[in-house]
Amino acid sequence: MYPDPNSVTRVTTIGAGPIGAGWAAHFLARGYDVTAYIHDPSERVGFDAIVHTAWISLTGLGLADGASRDRLTVVSDLNKAVQDAEFIQESSPERLELKQALYAQLGEIVPREVVIASSTSGLMMTDIQAICPTPERTVIGHPFNPPYLLPLVEIIGGKQTLPEAVTWVRDFYEVAGKAPLVMKKEIPGFVATRLQEALWREALHMVANGEATPEDIDIALKNGPAPRMVVQGQCMAFHVACGEGGMATNLDQFGPALKWPWTRLQAPELTQELRDRMVDGCNEIAGDRHFEEMAAERDRKIVAVLNALKNDA
Amino acid sequence: MYPDPNSVTRVTTIGAGPIGAGWAAHFLARGYDVTAYIHDPSERVGFDAIVHTAWISLTGLGLADGASRDRLTVVSDLNKAVQDAEFIQESSPERLELKQALYAQLGEIVPREVVIASSTSGLMMTDIQAICPTPERTVIGHPFNPPYLLPLVEIIGGKQTLPEAVTWVRDFYEVAGKAPLVMKKEIPGFVATRLQEALWREALHMVANGEATPEDIDIALKNGPAPRMVVQGQCMAFHVACGEGGMATNLDQFGPALKWPWTRLQAPELTQELRDRMVDGCNEIAGDRHFEEMAAERDRKIVAVLNALKNDA
Repeated sequence: MYPDPNSVTRVTTIGAGPIGAGWAAHFLARGYDVTAYIHDPSERVGFDAIVHTAWISLTGLGLADGASRDRLTVVSDLNKAVQDAEFIQESSPERLELKQALYAQLGEIVPREVVIASSTSGLMMTDIQAICPTPERTVIGHPFNPPYLLPLVEIIGGKQTLPEAVTWVRDFYEVAGKAPLVMKKEIPGFVATRLQEALWREALHMVANGEATPEDIDIALKNGPAPRMVVQGQCMAFHVACGEGGMATNLDQFGPALKWPWTRLQAPELTQELRDRMVDGCNEIAGDRHFEEMAAERDRKIVAVLNALKNDA
Repeated sequence: MYPDPNSVTRVTTIGAGPIGAGWAAHFLARGYDVTAYIHDPSERVGFDAIVHTAWISLTGLGLADGASRDRLTVVSDLNKAVQDAEFIQESSPERLELKQALYAQLGEIVPREVVIASSTSGLMMTDIQAICPTPERTVIGHPFNPPYLLPLVEIIGGKQTLPEAVTWVRDFYEVAGKAPLVMKKEIPGFVATRLQEALWREALHMVANGEATPEDIDIALKNGPAPRMVVQGQCMAFHVACGEGGMATNLDQFGPALKWPWTRLQAPELTQELRDRMVDGCNEIAGDRHFEEMAAERDRKIVAVLNALKNDA
């Protein structure tokens, strides 16, 4: 039904803001022909400025063969914008009624075998697709800002989305140089923003309570958890830090600390089932690698990250 | 009263575990003479292994002039360990009675002008110093694991600690190549661990609730917030992402999102005072840099980080 993700050469982006223009720049850098729809020609200057800025980074990361900004077409006619599209990335303003009306229209004019992904960070696809006549190929593909730099794209369909559309868009994003993550449930904030938001709210509490300043927060993160988080995430950071025993040691030994007031967020009950999910999950990621091998890799990569930052300073 | 932080040449570390041995390796790499106290000679093998591992990374980060592992002395006699020390970094097991007894003893045998810092992550200095006869120079200097790699050291005194000791140890850590952060209040989890713990607890909730797997959590972090967090922290990430308007725009426009269920942690009330603290704090960090300059710096550094990780893979 859907085309081979590897065969896609023409992508349409919708939206002239930092997300829409960032996506356009990303797809150009990966060697696609890009048609960008901007609602009003007056947005062109801002759009071009973002693409221009993004291109500096994208060149630094390495352009795909044949990638060129000459392969960009910018239009303000929606029909023209989507007529040759093999994939559509929509990044219109975050207003439900606006998106619903847009998807109602796209659902008419875009061929059924073309997947339409929304960059929305705050809305649910079940709501966005409510009045779309062809909702089965609409899906959320939520990037992280700036979208031309950070690889993550969180994917989830709405109630009417076909599983095939979800699978297709995951495969396509992978081909297009992104790190796709298909979510298990349609929840507010998805995965990455939820985690970041928990940290952010604790930070706001600390500032409100005179426990830290914004500067303290940033110094602590940049010099503490962040260099390890960029290398290992959080689960594997704890798994590897606990040596031979891994996540099992972490939870069995430090489980009581989940009751301590180390943040204002209450932890869930550490049931046997939750313990096993965490332990099994980490063991699966580790595969047959010994913790010493993973610790050495962690250290090597943290050194590379710290040196990269130092050399830039 | 205390020596010039720049004149210190001899450091004593206490503890043979990953934190104690990691500190010893760090100080060696910064060109100090290090005397390491290990409780039992049988711990020597493990201690040496950690120093050996750490040295690989420390060499990668760049050794100070004259730095050498030959300048390490390992002893199991506490009196001998501290007799020439100009600074003591204590990383004994995390048991309050044990630390209290140790500080009672150190308080007798260590000259008053030598600052003693504890690596504790879970105890308060007010409690640790309770029966120390010279508590005014005892202070917490909490590193982040692995201590030979991550620059952060969180500093806070107990009720009996002199402000001069806090200032001294901050200056000394800076000279010794660390990123010291003096905390505003003595709170459980300090700053960095609190922030990380909020994120960790949200992650556990998500796994418990079938919303994500441990692998999902780590993929989301590594490819989403972490590469930006290592460059900008969290406050400045939002400040710069909001362009001209900065943190003020972030809070005034997206403030309502603090009520949304984007994490299980309730946000504090966004009072005018909290808003101003966040806005003023970010403006102070920014100084006279325009947001475009900071955004360009962010992008350049994220590119450097991503390329460093890619080149290592």
